[in-house]
Amino acid sequence: MRAFLDDFRWQDVAHRPYKDEGSAPFRAISRQVLFEEQALDCELRYFEMAAGGYSTLERHEHMHGVMILRGHGHCLLGDFVRTLAPFDLVTIPAWTWHQFRATAGEPFGFLCMVNRLRDRPQLPTEAELAALWAIPEVAAFLAG
Amino acid sequence: MRAFLDDFRWQDVAHRPYKDEGSAPFRAISRQVLFEEQALDCELRYFEMAAGGYSTLERHEHMHGVMILRGHGHCLLGDFVRTLAPFDLVTIPAWTWHQFRATAGEPFGFLCMVNRLRDRPQLPTEAELAALWAIPEVAAFLAG
Repeated sequence: MRAFLDDFRWQDVAHRPYKDEGSAPFRAISRQVLFEEQALDCELRYFEMAAGGYSTLERHEHMHGVMILRGHGHCLLGDFVRTLAPFDLVTIPAWTWHQFRATAGEPFGFLCMVNRLRDRPQLPTEAELAALWAIPEVAAFLAG
Repeated sequence: MRAFLDDFRWQDVAHRPYKDEGSAPFRAISRQVLFEEQALDCELRYFEMAAGGYSTLERHEHMHGVMILRGHGHCLLGDFVRTLAPFDLVTIPAWTWHQFRATAGEPFGFLCMVNRLRDRPQLPTEAELAALWAIPEVAAFLAG
């Protein structure tokens, strides 16, 4: 048993950087891997952004199953922006652009279930990014 | 996006019986499958017991990754009993006897991540059950 500690940390769970610095755009986000076992075909991770933080805008073949755990925020999912609250569920299908943002002036954290064996994320090209900015709702989201 | 509703229910998620009635011993427990996708190698389920409810005492080859989401309770894990609170993590290794009980006079609910392809649970024989009852801490747990 690994106890839940204060401030969304867990006993014997490392509090890690989200990704290697400079490998992709992101801000004020951390990663804790809650389950990562040879015998489990998925991992369960907890990502948390500080107020104003955001995850990388990316897409990939593998699917995400997400449950919000802490705070409120928004996510981009393809051409749409969703408002999210604790315990809401988000399925991110294959090859769908997605990004999470802590837009409510508070920490925003979520569980993410993902296959243990998976492909690497892809970043948008300049043209793909321009196409996203051309959607007013998405532009307002990306502007932060 | 599937919104979280009142009382630990979710939009477009069926509230199901835990198992077929009479197939194994259990009490006052329900099952909601939050993620069950061909492209995800695990499922994420939410089980909830009413006060006094319990899951089946069982074991199997497949592993569970559990996070408590609602209320307080206890679980049996092999020869030990653990006290559990919201967001605590429990890893249930292969072939380990386990049971969850809502012992705090309140609903007790948890997430359980499990491989999509898995073996069927095994119930204890009379001899195996007697061996568990012979451990005082476990007997107090099983007595409810």
